[in-house]
Amino acid sequence: MSRAPSAPLRIALAGCGHVGGSLLDLLTQRRLAAAPGPDVQVQRVLVRHAALARPAFARAVHAGLAATTALTADVGALLDDDIDVLVEVIGGTTTARTLVETALARGVRVVTANKALLGERGAALQALAAIGNTRLDFEGAVCGAVPVVRCVRAGAAGVGITRVSGILNGTSNYVLERVARGESLAEAVAAAQQLGYAEADPTRDLNGQDAEDKLRILAWLAFGVPPDSLSVTRRGIDAESAAWAARVAAEGDRVKLLATVAREEGALVARILPTRVHGTDPWAQVAGPRNRIVVESDSAGALVFEGAGAGGLATAGAVLSDVLAGAGG
Amino acid sequence: MSRAPSAPLRIALAGCGHVGGSLLDLLTQRRLAAAPGPDVQVQRVLVRHAALARPAFARAVHAGLAATTALTADVGALLDDDIDVLVEVIGGTTTARTLVETALARGVRVVTANKALLGERGAALQALAAIGNTRLDFEGAVCGAVPVVRCVRAGAAGVGITRVSGILNGTSNYVLERVARGESLAEAVAAAQQLGYAEADPTRDLNGQDAEDKLRILAWLAFGVPPDSLSVTRRGIDAESAAWAARVAAEGDRVKLLATVAREEGALVARILPTRVHGTDPWAQVAGPRNRIVVESDSAGALVFEGAGAGGLATAGAVLSDVLAGAGG
Repeated sequence: MSRAPSAPLRIALAGCGHVGGSLLDLLTQRRLAAAPGPDVQVQRVLVRHAALARPAFARAVHAGLAATTALTADVGALLDDDIDVLVEVIGGTTTARTLVETALARGVRVVTANKALLGERGAALQALAAIGNTRLDFEGAVCGAVPVVRCVRAGAAGVGITRVSGILNGTSNYVLERVARGESLAEAVAAAQQLGYAEADPTRDLNGQDAEDKLRILAWLAFGVPPDSLSVTRRGIDAESAAWAARVAAEGDRVKLLATVAREEGALVARILPTRVHGTDPWAQVAGPRNRIVVESDSAGALVFEGAGAGGLATAGAVLSDVLAGAGG
Repeated sequence: MSRAPSAPLRIALAGCGHVGGSLLDLLTQRRLAAAPGPDVQVQRVLVRHAALARPAFARAVHAGLAATTALTADVGALLDDDIDVLVEVIGGTTTARTLVETALARGVRVVTANKALLGERGAALQALAAIGNTRLDFEGAVCGAVPVVRCVRAGAAGVGITRVSGILNGTSNYVLERVARGESLAEAVAAAQQLGYAEADPTRDLNGQDAEDKLRILAWLAFGVPPDSLSVTRRGIDAESAAWAARVAAEGDRVKLLATVAREEGALVARILPTRVHGTDPWAQVAGPRNRIVVESDSAGALVFEGAGAGGLATAGAVLSDVLAGAGG
């Protein structure tokens, strides 16, 4: 944090897909509106194919946010000496891991939305950040726009956390909603894909792996257990649970994919399971692709967060808040 | 922030009532549990009558958190040179204002839960903090445990906020709930007082003044308008609106005291009004003394926060998170 207050915050952006492109657009709008807070400069943007047309990048160049030459496919060149923050939104655990580790080891601040990387190596990366005397922030990695990472990390979710529970995956939640209305699992998945709620391969959403990544991170923040060492009992949405959800809906109730981690008799118990809830239960009201997280603690009681769990713009907004918040003040 | 990382964080606590006493208890528990994070030392506690027995203070002394001599009724002595943070939880706008202004002018960090003071002078105090190159934090001032201040300040509630709405006062919400079940306004208020949800004088809760203080602070954070310059249309809970709430409840709907601030046709419009909502609406589900806040923005959509809106322990938890979060990291 040796940057002078008036100097622009210099960013290296790894990835220019949904989240990266939306982040460039938010930064461009921010510059055009002369928003308060630190000035941001995008030094380099890492992409796989530098020759492809990228409208968000073109708009950023036009706004003076980045130079035309900032686009690069050279991983090695991304982290040159002239940056204050690495923003990692390429995903995966190979190139992303190398970039994040290199940056932290050099004392460069890192903002990432990569839940898989954090679920695997969060505690080690955090230790690297501490050694490098820098920060690792990852609001965008857990439930998009919902600022639960910030709040749990800051202790704002209460002292003496006893339980964290949530609907952590919007795709499976949307699919379950359509199944409850009478569609088959295949029809519901196809509809979610058509609306952009599900990836071409929705396996990780449906089998609970995506929710598990997030639960590992939440358990780490709330209880201090390294994300990769948490033991999680997991069952996702399959033909059998979908059929159950349809039957339950006919009786006025709902099946939701609930993720929970709690202290039970001294041990930490983590589960991701399709769970029957009463039709009037707040969990049953969580609509479509939204996420809901409840943090229970001795001091704050039950604290509820709800919002858009995914989407390029929601996640980019979370990333931006990390980028700017870490800039001091 | 010139404090060495290993030196304890030295606190001056102004006020030892519900919130101050709960804060001492949380700090005592934290010390006894050898919790991670900065070590805290309570240098002085300002009270009106230093001779009164104060169990929370006695426990803090026993845990080595404070010296027996730390209790003082001398306002002038509270801010001696040896403190890092002033925690102001005495309330009111006279002594509290003097203490907060003096601390900020000296570059001492301030954490306060005083919504009336912020509603009146928030922008000026923030400017004073900037001049003194220090911080003013106030998570506990708005809706107790609900970490909405932190999230809106950090931009985590989204880019391009268009509207903030909320049930911001738990006492009036609880009273309306009992009125909906058939009690008279007087009976409902008496019940709220008996359960500790309402003060001996519940005027500010019922007439909407308490909600207005909070709405001014939220509008300031979300839209940048100084809290004292916001124009608010306000109506509280009186015999007429209580009678209306009872009639509406008979039809399956609910009346809630909703506070809203939004950009409408370029202008900022703020209202606190008893509002009819459908019985199945999420606003209707907000139970008893809880608060619910919805922040709508272009980037994050509708973000919902819900939790305990008041209570010494919930507010003390919010204050503690400010105290520790501001200590770096």
